[in-house]
Amino acid sequence: MSAPRRPPERRSGFAHMLVLQTRWMDNDAYGHVNNVVYYSYFDTLVNRWLIDEGGFDILRSPVIGYAIETACRFHRPFAYPEPIEACLRVGHLGRSSVRYELGLFGVGENEARADGHFVHVFVDRATERPAPIPERIRASFERLRVGS
Amino acid sequence: MSAPRRPPERRSGFAHMLVLQTRWMDNDAYGHVNNVVYYSYFDTLVNRWLIDEGGFDILRSPVIGYAIETACRFHRPFAYPEPIEACLRVGHLGRSSVRYELGLFGVGENEARADGHFVHVFVDRATERPAPIPERIRASFERLRVGS
Amino acid sequence: MSAPRRPPERRSGFAHMLVLQTRWMDNDAYGHVNNVVYYSYFDTLVNRWLIDEGGFDILRSPVIGYAIETACRFHRPFAYPEPIEACLRVGHLGRSSVRYELGLFGVGENEARADGHFVHVFVDRATERPAPIPERIRASFERLRVGS
Amino acid sequence: MSAPRRPPERRSGFAHMLVLQTRWMDNDAYGHVNNVVYYSYFDTLVNRWLIDEGGFDILRSPVIGYAIETACRFHRPFAYPEPIEACLRVGHLGRSSVRYELGLFGVGENEARADGHFVHVFVDRATERPAPIPERIRASFERLRVGS
Repeated sequence: MSAPRRPPERRSGFAHMLVLQTRWMDNDAYGHVNNVVYYSYFDTLVNRWLIDEGGFDILRSPVIGYAIETACRFHRPFAYPEPIEACLRVGHLGRSSVRYELGLFGVGENEARADGHFVHVFVDRATERPAPIPERIRASFERLRVGS
Repeated sequence: MSAPRRPPERRSGFAHMLVLQTRWMDNDAYGHVNNVVYYSYFDTLVNRWLIDEGGFDILRSPVIGYAIETACRFHRPFAYPEPIEACLRVGHLGRSSVRYELGLFGVGENEARADGHFVHVFVDRATERPAPIPERIRASFERLRVGS
Repeated sequence: MSAPRRPPERRSGFAHMLVLQTRWMDNDAYGHVNNVVYYSYFDTLVNRWLIDEGGFDILRSPVIGYAIETACRFHRPFAYPEPIEACLRVGHLGRSSVRYELGLFGVGENEARADGHFVHVFVDRATERPAPIPERIRASFERLRVGS
Repeated sequence: MSAPRRPPERRSGFAHMLVLQTRWMDNDAYGHVNNVVYYSYFDTLVNRWLIDEGGFDILRSPVIGYAIETACRFHRPFAYPEPIEACLRVGHLGRSSVRYELGLFGVGENEARADGHFVHVFVDRATERPAPIPERIRASFERLRVGS
């Protein structure tokens, strides 16, 4: 906390965007979306990518992603009923793990109101041991890389 | 439970529809949207109507709606990531209370996978005493009546 | 809504009690526990009974309970951080279905702040067809009957 | 992700513990508590401390805490219905901000199944500008410091 804080992420830093709805109960006693719920947006965005682009099947795919680390910085609040433009890129991409980087933006805004990361380790559904990222999913991750 | 169960609601019984997103964490250990979350869809649909059509302001309106009764019947499950076509009509409309009737449909389906009701009593935000339904909200409710 | 409303349930009408915690995010923008969350208390209470008293195993039991109907009346609000004394009885008990009746009380209070019901149909986990309530669970339900 | 990961936190690293309940709907489609819900445990533990030990009043205190950063590492899952022994210490303590450090343990376990941090900035409720941490709250934080 003594080091200067990195500025909020910007829209151009992301490869993919999905508009997410807020819900009445997302707002907490202060009238803003509760910090916990941001991770639900992360989770929903990441899994939608895996399903839509990676061919992932929640109930049947033999290899599944376990979250092993997540983090979020909160810059400016959201409040129901406004929608969220949720953005995604892939940072580190390993043999069985991937680091997603995410930004949540107000409609048409350039500066993230929240940003963070989410690390998935892919495991065999039965043994829960790390497994290589399935080929189609890996190919979809390549499309989520920015710059480098 | 001995009386025969009313059949599921049909699409034509409703006056308004809004598409709602599901979230990854809506699914429970059985791989379906948890029964609790359906009420969050109800809540979100009703409050969006109040805000968009009734001019309701969550933080500032002097008269607010308190839920005093809700109910839901579950006919067939939803599962993330599928969207929900959430439908609304107004049943009973009193001086300070309203009974919303709701149906949740799969995309393009005619028979509700879930249906239920939600009763709001409007109260003065400060005193929490019942108050007449504000005029603009009442007018919007008239547009949600079906048949009669 | 024209018929007079039944009075709130009383403590003596229930056979079992479990103290449930509230969470910060249970409170909504009005500073009270959101109506949706009450069903999470219902769900948690009922499943704890099935597990603790009926020997139910979420992941392995061949017969599982599907919610087919729930309802709740809200008399007076709760707010985090107060705990909830959640009470349970069994109403109708059929071959493959059961109607739980529930009351949520403030600490030491006699009049429910909320009450409602929850109907489970027991189904075969694989086929999702109705199945007889397993013997140990049925026996536990007999202990939840009140009066009659 | 190339640097070796710090080992999980241990019980002796914390100053305070509160037992938290899990809920049926905390479990996701994989039968474990969903990663999002861990932050609800964090939130609930931190706010309980502020209320019980710091004299904080959610609805009336003129200075409130806004989360500006949270993070969690997931080592081993929890699953409803097991309880969580949620542990807390204070790391950095500034003029208007505090960094809580948290560990979530299985009953009687020494190694955290999850650990993370949560940074609150205290702000004036009306202006939302940073404000000094109120004296009684600051004193309670001093009791949460470990080592040093």
